[in-house]
Amino acid sequence: MTHAKRYAASTLTTFVEQLFEKAGADAEVAQVVTRVLLEGELLGHRTHGLNLVSRYIGGMLSGQVKASARMLEQVSDSGISALFDGHYVLGPYCVSRALDCAAKGATAQGIGIAVVRRASHIGCLAAYLKPFTDRGLVAMVYSSDPSAGLVCAHGGIDPVYTPNPIAAGIPTRGEPILLDVSMSTVTLGLVGQCRDAGSTLPHPVLMSNEGRLSDDPADFFTTPPGSILPLGGQAFGHKGFALAILVEALTSGLAGHGRKDAPDQWGASATAVVIDPRFFGGLEAFTDESSFLSKLILASRPVDPGRPVRLPGQAGLKLREQALGEGVSLTQKVVDELNRTAGQLQLPALS
Amino acid sequence: MTHAKRYAASTLTTFVEQLFEKAGADAEVAQVVTRVLLEGELLGHRTHGLNLVSRYIGGMLSGQVKASARMLEQVSDSGISALFDGHYVLGPYCVSRALDCAAKGATAQGIGIAVVRRASHIGCLAAYLKPFTDRGLVAMVYSSDPSAGLVCAHGGIDPVYTPNPIAAGIPTRGEPILLDVSMSTVTLGLVGQCRDAGSTLPHPVLMSNEGRLSDDPADFFTTPPGSILPLGGQAFGHKGFALAILVEALTSGLAGHGRKDAPDQWGASATAVVIDPRFFGGLEAFTDESSFLSKLILASRPVDPGRPVRLPGQAGLKLREQALGEGVSLTQKVVDELNRTAGQLQLPALS
Repeated sequence: MTHAKRYAASTLTTFVEQLFEKAGADAEVAQVVTRVLLEGELLGHRTHGLNLVSRYIGGMLSGQVKASARMLEQVSDSGISALFDGHYVLGPYCVSRALDCAAKGATAQGIGIAVVRRASHIGCLAAYLKPFTDRGLVAMVYSSDPSAGLVCAHGGIDPVYTPNPIAAGIPTRGEPILLDVSMSTVTLGLVGQCRDAGSTLPHPVLMSNEGRLSDDPADFFTTPPGSILPLGGQAFGHKGFALAILVEALTSGLAGHGRKDAPDQWGASATAVVIDPRFFGGLEAFTDESSFLSKLILASRPVDPGRPVRLPGQAGLKLREQALGEGVSLTQKVVDELNRTAGQLQLPALS
Repeated sequence: MTHAKRYAASTLTTFVEQLFEKAGADAEVAQVVTRVLLEGELLGHRTHGLNLVSRYIGGMLSGQVKASARMLEQVSDSGISALFDGHYVLGPYCVSRALDCAAKGATAQGIGIAVVRRASHIGCLAAYLKPFTDRGLVAMVYSSDPSAGLVCAHGGIDPVYTPNPIAAGIPTRGEPILLDVSMSTVTLGLVGQCRDAGSTLPHPVLMSNEGRLSDDPADFFTTPPGSILPLGGQAFGHKGFALAILVEALTSGLAGHGRKDAPDQWGASATAVVIDPRFFGGLEAFTDESSFLSKLILASRPVDPGRPVRLPGQAGLKLREQALGEGVSLTQKVVDELNRTAGQLQLPALS
């Protein structure tokens, strides 16, 4: 990867917001989506960062992806429980609104939950969490995509469901703990990357369409397709499989829109749950405990002396700090794509 | 294991309730604890079933374990969010009350949460869920034990936290999906069983106190002790590790009582979350989706033709149905222990 140059986060924000607005997004939607994608970039999730801008705008221009705040429909609301229908509005806007709604419930009564069906692509779940941990809230996001089947049941051959990530932000006295993990061994992204690079996967976590364990991406991209093993692999895959079913229930199940509806357009079901520790043992006791646990973990002797034990999110937060201090480095490929999109929209290139 | 004879569930219920009451439990506590332990037995969790009765009563008689409903203290209550201090009351009573409390919030406003600190041993999490799925609710239980460190951080050697299970009951149009999985590869129970049987573990999921991967239980029971690998093992343990931290936050973190307090008595932090699908896409849409997903899963071609794909909880629910129809078969060891406890309490033996 060639790194072009470094850009100030504020420069990128203005540039990307303008792209979204010129492509037809409401100002509010443009701001929120830009913030989430930039945050993914800052945390080092380069496959779920500003590389998505051109793809999202492409979807808007083709009419598949919507960008009007009004189109995000609130279907139900109990004050702490809500259901939204995204009608394929840009996913980062849908999920952010769901999190805001859940946080409102949490600060009022201790917990809030908001479910979104038919959100467009939602990017990197870890990118949503810090604004909530900064307020002393525990924030969780679950997601699945009922239009795709990629992962097999434990002991099964056929692909049935999606990697179904669980993400959470946990406040501590210092930096938050940010976790974002799929309930499959690997994601489709990695399988595709290995195929494109002509390499095998680091572990045999694919199942060929004949039920043979494989590390060869070619065994996934067949007709009928292969599948990805659940988290836990052959020995403990019943655990990842069970957790993935729970994620399906919390997302598409509560959404009332899922695999039974056989959607033919990519669209996420996502559920945000926010909890306010002040309604339980208190924020101070909470962060005392999360900080104490963090210290215990960081004090663990490492198996490999060259690789100290780290907390989930720690590496990403360090990259974020660096990027905010020294500027965000983008690959030439991403800069070229952004500038091509700018040209298409008759906007000036990134300077 | 020698199986003694079969007993009607009602006979066992009456017998065990009498034991708990004679040992000093309130009638309500005796009933709830008996129901949960019998349910664990019915679902085939023989290590978390009626074998625990004598242990629990032993704890009561020694004074460590409490059995008075009044001692379960409600510390906070927002209507949908609650914190209880168990003060080492029998765990199944604490967790059942937390679930009832969370279910009340869920049926009022869509979601409810109740956290318990210092519950005594809480048995098998799967045993709590069916009464809630029978009412069309999604019920989840998380737990950790801040007095014990057994599992290592990903990439670490030292034991830091507990297996931290996540359990959930998911209603469908038929039998519920019941999942109960730890965020570690294996539990302490299995490591102990293998040690007692003089066998190795089925997979190398232990870490010796020098950082060597092992399948030998002896490498765990050392001074200082070894540890158990997180779910995901060496390749994907960052996922189980991250989820375990989330469970710590949701249990001991919210409870305001955890590892920072260095408790010296075994005692669980447990969190119950209940969701009512009627506040989102509706119960019918929910069970349509969960039933559709179940069918997809069960229709998967099995890797091993002799082992059809099953849903989480399916095998246990089948055992439960058999036991309710044909009687509950107990091992002679459990019957002997129950009768020894009955004798100790000057009650007649199980007939």
